[in-house]
Amino acid sequence: MINKILVANRGEIALRVMRSAREMGIPTVAVYSETDNTAPHVLYADEAVCIGPPPSAQSYLLIDKIIDACKQTGADAVHPGYGFLSENAHFAEACEKADITFIGPSSPAIKVMGDKLASKQAVKDFGVPLVPGMDEPISDVAAAKKIAEEIGYPVMIKASAGGGGKGMRIVHDPKDFEEQMTRAVSEARSSFGDDSVFIEKFITSPKHIEVQILGDQHGNIVYLFERECSIQRRNQKVIEEAPSAVVTPEVRKKFGEAAVNVARSCNYYGAGTVEFIADSNLDFYFLEMNTRLQVEHPVTEQITGLDLVKEQIKIARGEKLSFAQDDLQINGHSLEVRVYAEDPENNFLPDTGTLKTYRRPQGPGIRVDDGYEPGMEIPIYYDPMIAKLITHGKDRQEAIERMRRAIREYQIEGIKTTLTFCDFVLGHEEFVSGKFTTKFVEEHFTPEVLQKDVDADTALVAALLGAELRQKQQSTLHPAQNTDSAKNSGWKKRMNKR
Amino acid sequence: MINKILVANRGEIALRVMRSAREMGIPTVAVYSETDNTAPHVLYADEAVCIGPPPSAQSYLLIDKIIDACKQTGADAVHPGYGFLSENAHFAEACEKADITFIGPSSPAIKVMGDKLASKQAVKDFGVPLVPGMDEPISDVAAAKKIAEEIGYPVMIKASAGGGGKGMRIVHDPKDFEEQMTRAVSEARSSFGDDSVFIEKFITSPKHIEVQILGDQHGNIVYLFERECSIQRRNQKVIEEAPSAVVTPEVRKKFGEAAVNVARSCNYYGAGTVEFIADSNLDFYFLEMNTRLQVEHPVTEQITGLDLVKEQIKIARGEKLSFAQDDLQINGHSLEVRVYAEDPENNFLPDTGTLKTYRRPQGPGIRVDDGYEPGMEIPIYYDPMIAKLITHGKDRQEAIERMRRAIREYQIEGIKTTLTFCDFVLGHEEFVSGKFTTKFVEEHFTPEVLQKDVDADTALVAALLGAELRQKQQSTLHPAQNTDSAKNSGWKKRMNKR
Repeated sequence: MINKILVANRGEIALRVMRSAREMGIPTVAVYSETDNTAPHVLYADEAVCIGPPPSAQSYLLIDKIIDACKQTGADAVHPGYGFLSENAHFAEACEKADITFIGPSSPAIKVMGDKLASKQAVKDFGVPLVPGMDEPISDVAAAKKIAEEIGYPVMIKASAGGGGKGMRIVHDPKDFEEQMTRAVSEARSSFGDDSVFIEKFITSPKHIEVQILGDQHGNIVYLFERECSIQRRNQKVIEEAPSAVVTPEVRKKFGEAAVNVARSCNYYGAGTVEFIADSNLDFYFLEMNTRLQVEHPVTEQITGLDLVKEQIKIARGEKLSFAQDDLQINGHSLEVRVYAEDPENNFLPDTGTLKTYRRPQGPGIRVDDGYEPGMEIPIYYDPMIAKLITHGKDRQEAIERMRRAIREYQIEGIKTTLTFCDFVLGHEEFVSGKFTTKFVEEHFTPEVLQKDVDADTALVAALLGAELRQKQQSTLHPAQNTDSAKNSGWKKRMNKR
Repeated sequence: MINKILVANRGEIALRVMRSAREMGIPTVAVYSETDNTAPHVLYADEAVCIGPPPSAQSYLLIDKIIDACKQTGADAVHPGYGFLSENAHFAEACEKADITFIGPSSPAIKVMGDKLASKQAVKDFGVPLVPGMDEPISDVAAAKKIAEEIGYPVMIKASAGGGGKGMRIVHDPKDFEEQMTRAVSEARSSFGDDSVFIEKFITSPKHIEVQILGDQHGNIVYLFERECSIQRRNQKVIEEAPSAVVTPEVRKKFGEAAVNVARSCNYYGAGTVEFIADSNLDFYFLEMNTRLQVEHPVTEQITGLDLVKEQIKIARGEKLSFAQDDLQINGHSLEVRVYAEDPENNFLPDTGTLKTYRRPQGPGIRVDDGYEPGMEIPIYYDPMIAKLITHGKDRQEAIERMRRAIREYQIEGIKTTLTFCDFVLGHEEFVSGKFTTKFVEEHFTPEVLQKDVDADTALVAALLGAELRQKQQSTLHPAQNTDSAKNSGWKKRMNKR
């Protein structure tokens, strides 16, 4: 049914997909931009086709080029990865038209879930909880106040034409409602020329919790439990884990069943993720569904023992799921940190350059998904995520300890990364408690918290230049003093940081 | 209770131990020989002490030097790894005397299990099955024949003073017994000056199956299921897996309980392995107990989710096991292949040289435990095992497919390795069936079976020299032809081999 898969992506996710295809005995085709011509995903694939220059708009985002590459190489299926064209219904349609299997959901499912309003309408009919609020915009203050009382305070008033926080007001006390509503309406009118607003419940201490689902083309849908992704910086996830530290088996079942209902609402098949916002009581509400593999899918793989890419391919081949909900269980705990080429001490400015040193951590319970090798340049054109560092432990504590050990072991020189930032989060008592919210980073992180690590890093660079040689010369001559000499080596320095 | 651990070993197992110690927040001390002065285990440790020149007899095997290194660095515990001093009761005693915690069993347990006769005597009283045979040597033919009939044919007659196959006879038919016994006795007399012989049951198609156990210092002992290690070359394990493909839950329980009884027979605490020989009906008999961590312990870690080194350390600290037998279960299937610097096409001659290219496989379910980095020399002084490649899958088939994918992905240039040999085994139908015995390699392997791979490898070296550059030049200029150009790259070549 599938004889050759073209992977319409680059970097770690392209390699990730090709590895599973290879284990299934299916040849792969890479596509690549001119800057990526010797990238690992190109070298790993059985065949490779150049589809244009960077940036992505001239290569990885060109539907026609990718369909052409399929025809040229005889690929009869496409895996879109994440990002790029993965949630583009036109791309799924173009594949369907060209008789190429799109390894993902149907284009109508992508369309419905890609539309904020249509998706909410769809899931509502399936009893999935939505953030309490209005379906229709309003401008009458008295009527709005009545609705706010029904919803329950705190509420958020937001301009229906709004964006970027403009015309948005949070009201905690009913006595402030009229004044805030009047202001919101006037701000909406002056900013957008439209004075209608929505009222919805404001979630004070939100958690981002999402559920992985798998559905086949025969109507079977299961949930693969939740991922907690509340550690975010500017709405970008930075640390994910499975399961959530605070979700009980009862609540887990509720999350899972709601996610399955979301999938049912759009006749979903393939792998998908249903994102929820949860309040401090773990009452949760549907946010959106991502109709593709997610960056953080490995943590679910670690705790379920399933290979999600293989499941995607089998579903695309028309196979039935080989397990039912009751066959699935959680084994241990898994964490993922995203390693970005960004400087956490300088407002997370993207950094580019050459990976002068690049040495991955190893040992039990460690997995690194990346698309780089020592000596490679970090290109400026693409996402600055260079790797995903994943740990698996028998419980959350072990997964955290393993991650902190692995972060110290990870040797990256030549570019700045967010590893120290991630280590700060992992060591914070609020993270350890599990009771963090999406506000964690803004509430707790300042560049100063990294300062002591920085000093160690500066020392590290100096140490690296001479340590190995120095050690080589000294240790055999003065074995008794080697304890000190060995301490000067780069790896050791890094290990010793705390 | 344990403030600093000295690891009395080198290579992958030293790193393995240090990683777990680090996750537990315990600093480590490396010891090293002069050739190992910049080895990864030295760089990884918090401190390092040179204990002499190679070979091991002048460094890693010197008990006094290691005790001195503990005193010098303030290490209050020693982890012996495997090999070297790990099963040396004198070393355990020396540690006890110096008030250093030996992370392993008590010295009396090491002593009993290190003695073939004493260990059999000990376990017999605990109802552990031994290969049917005699406790006492015999030289009377008629009496011996009677015993042979009780044991059941085929039987083996072996000289009590024997070794190296001399004075050894296998008898399948009772009518041949007298003649063979007479020959064995006379051969024993002429070879060893002692004509007494033992009679024991001969296991025709033996499997090597071993059971991992963990015991604490409070009398709690559990089994962590079996490992199948029948794929051996000259009594050296080369591929191990957990669980065994042919062991049923009922038989597993029997194996486990027998192993626990072996441990009870010597008041064992720590991690240990009980080795059994099993016949084609899976009737099994005690061979010996290894009173240390084994090379193949990772496959047990993968299927149980436990970190055996951490368990060893906790036991040594006097903690109780935090789980009971019923808490343990098997998740998926795990395989390990040992990667040796040996030439499988040239009688497995050890190879030395420089690791010009060294790139580990990655992706879900892959773990590499090694002690090498790109550019390192393989020293001539130590075990030629350069790495252990471990896979974990949801079932045996996935573990095998993953291993074969990982073997193709593993890039080692500059020395010959046994990877191709391992791949041959993994692809053999007898291996896939699970019904192989310890005779697999001698029955099925000849260097010729690797010939087609060799050709690909020769091409590979040539390809590596120019491919990347060639590709870089061509692909952007002639994108349409890149499919071919990309195929010439080294990684791809290796991937494409079959």
